[in-house]
Amino acid sequence: MSDRLSNSRFDQNRFMRRFGLTTPIALAPMAAASGGELAAASAKAGALGLIGGGYGELDWTQEQHSIAAQALSTDPQASARLGCGFITWKMAQDRSALDFVLERETPPTALMLSFGDPTLFARDITARGIPLICQIQTMAQLPQAVDAGASVIVAQGAEAGGHGMNAFDGRSTFTFVPEIADWLAANAPHVDLLAAGGVADGRGLAAALTLGAGGALIGTRLWATKESLAADKAIAEAVQASGDDTVRSAVFDVLREKNWPEEYDFRALRNVIHRQWEDRMHELRADPAAAIADYKAGVDAQDFSRAHVTVGEGAGLVGNCLSAGDVIAQITAEARSLLG
Amino acid sequence: MSDRLSNSRFDQNRFMRRFGLTTPIALAPMAAASGGELAAASAKAGALGLIGGGYGELDWTQEQHSIAAQALSTDPQASARLGCGFITWKMAQDRSALDFVLERETPPTALMLSFGDPTLFARDITARGIPLICQIQTMAQLPQAVDAGASVIVAQGAEAGGHGMNAFDGRSTFTFVPEIADWLAANAPHVDLLAAGGVADGRGLAAALTLGAGGALIGTRLWATKESLAADKAIAEAVQASGDDTVRSAVFDVLREKNWPEEYDFRALRNVIHRQWEDRMHELRADPAAAIADYKAGVDAQDFSRAHVTVGEGAGLVGNCLSAGDVIAQITAEARSLLG
Repeated sequence: MSDRLSNSRFDQNRFMRRFGLTTPIALAPMAAASGGELAAASAKAGALGLIGGGYGELDWTQEQHSIAAQALSTDPQASARLGCGFITWKMAQDRSALDFVLERETPPTALMLSFGDPTLFARDITARGIPLICQIQTMAQLPQAVDAGASVIVAQGAEAGGHGMNAFDGRSTFTFVPEIADWLAANAPHVDLLAAGGVADGRGLAAALTLGAGGALIGTRLWATKESLAADKAIAEAVQASGDDTVRSAVFDVLREKNWPEEYDFRALRNVIHRQWEDRMHELRADPAAAIADYKAGVDAQDFSRAHVTVGEGAGLVGNCLSAGDVIAQITAEARSLLG
Repeated sequence: MSDRLSNSRFDQNRFMRRFGLTTPIALAPMAAASGGELAAASAKAGALGLIGGGYGELDWTQEQHSIAAQALSTDPQASARLGCGFITWKMAQDRSALDFVLERETPPTALMLSFGDPTLFARDITARGIPLICQIQTMAQLPQAVDAGASVIVAQGAEAGGHGMNAFDGRSTFTFVPEIADWLAANAPHVDLLAAGGVADGRGLAAALTLGAGGALIGTRLWATKESLAADKAIAEAVQASGDDTVRSAVFDVLREKNWPEEYDFRALRNVIHRQWEDRMHELRADPAAAIADYKAGVDAQDFSRAHVTVGEGAGLVGNCLSAGDVIAQITAEARSLLG
């Protein structure tokens, strides 16, 4: 049995071909974790390296693009696997970082938008020939993303770390991926699909492909790598955690004074400060000053009983902190073996 | 490439061997849907047919066992694939239906307990040589179930229809299955693992096996079959629905006056009466009489804008109402093809 035949989901994979990848993995553009170093390491390992532009801080975005460009200056193939992701509703307030990325001499391989109406920025992206990746959390959001011109849909389940749809309105990766795959097959067969939320090892990547995705957007597992900007102490907490230890809520958004639209909330480790406030959200929102001070002191002290550790349910599958290249190689090899 | 080699997850499948199955599927013991007819049809199709003993109504349990026995009276192989499931916390109030099943002339092939401490009844089951299946929703529940003597663990994700852990504390199938698989491999390698929640087609079954399960417990897809006790009009609603249209909450438990432990709630279609009360749970609990009357009138009239339609997120993958035998054959063939 030839390797080619045994791994048709790899070797005939349109998402990989579209972006010149050697594995159907994209680095999730995690704000404060997916900097230039992690994006470059992911790209070198054959994945799509998306810098976490997040809230669109211009200086940070410029700096991380410089770091990535420098790291890949002698590797044109990997350079061509670099992109960036932004929080859509935040771009509506200040799009300077998006414009910086759009107007760079080397255009991004892809731009990803999450959390909000992509229509506002889609034309500026696609008119430059840059593939648009839209992350969505419900079937209801799918037609808008496709109409906006998305080349790739990212189906984000509520098990994902960081921001996503609240658990009441959101979906899970296991059912969301095949339901989108069916819709795309019928309505937009040119659009690729990635699974996001819970993919942390080769079993997850193989399952994502089996469910109908063309690949996976990986957060938590790549957050816990040597090239990640996450704090070493935070990673050490996550490595010890079970998926049971994570939880979705708006607690950390209130503590960070991020004014997120109410349909979205945030999955992280359920630490001391979270347990303290999770049943008193009204009280926290009404008078957050003391809690915010407590939280900020925790952040300054790198005390992760108070500071947030941004990981998803997949934390229960992460037992170490390796280099991103080793992580991507292991996931790829395990998935190939399972699908072979 | 031989069929045997290409489908090692089927042909070397311990869960199938343990129960004499021809496909790694168990019918979820859905109260008010998984009656004797559906359990018998599932067993005939090669799956484990678990009657939905639910709250333990003795008359109903006796009647459905008679129906199943009658349907399988000429098929000893299929007869040996019949079992039953109960709600554990309810058995602690009245175990007469459990005792009826335990003391039948033909013992059940397996007994499944969900939602509560299985230790209370485990010895009565395992001492008779009857394999115990324990459904759990968090890693924290796993050691207790294994210590109780479970032969099979069912990992239920929050995407499942009907009762399960609330979305705040619960897990998703995609991460829960591999995390349990790792724990069992290290601590109890003799125990089998089934995925429950979201498995509604061959992609889902293949993904469950890829994630490390030995099979899948299937609810929603078998709920929407000709042999199901679910009302035809309810099935018609579910066939039209997306996974987006389902939601977890305690609304229907309050409306049905079921006094469930607070960690559990219920996924169903988010219909008119659900939307009416979902943001006013305190008010509903404080003074439910009028809402209950409205709900009961809906049930009597088979008006599913008010009566509950008990399906999970997998409803978005269910586009028809077939016989259970056809459903199981299709899922099996699709999964074999994907894993081949």
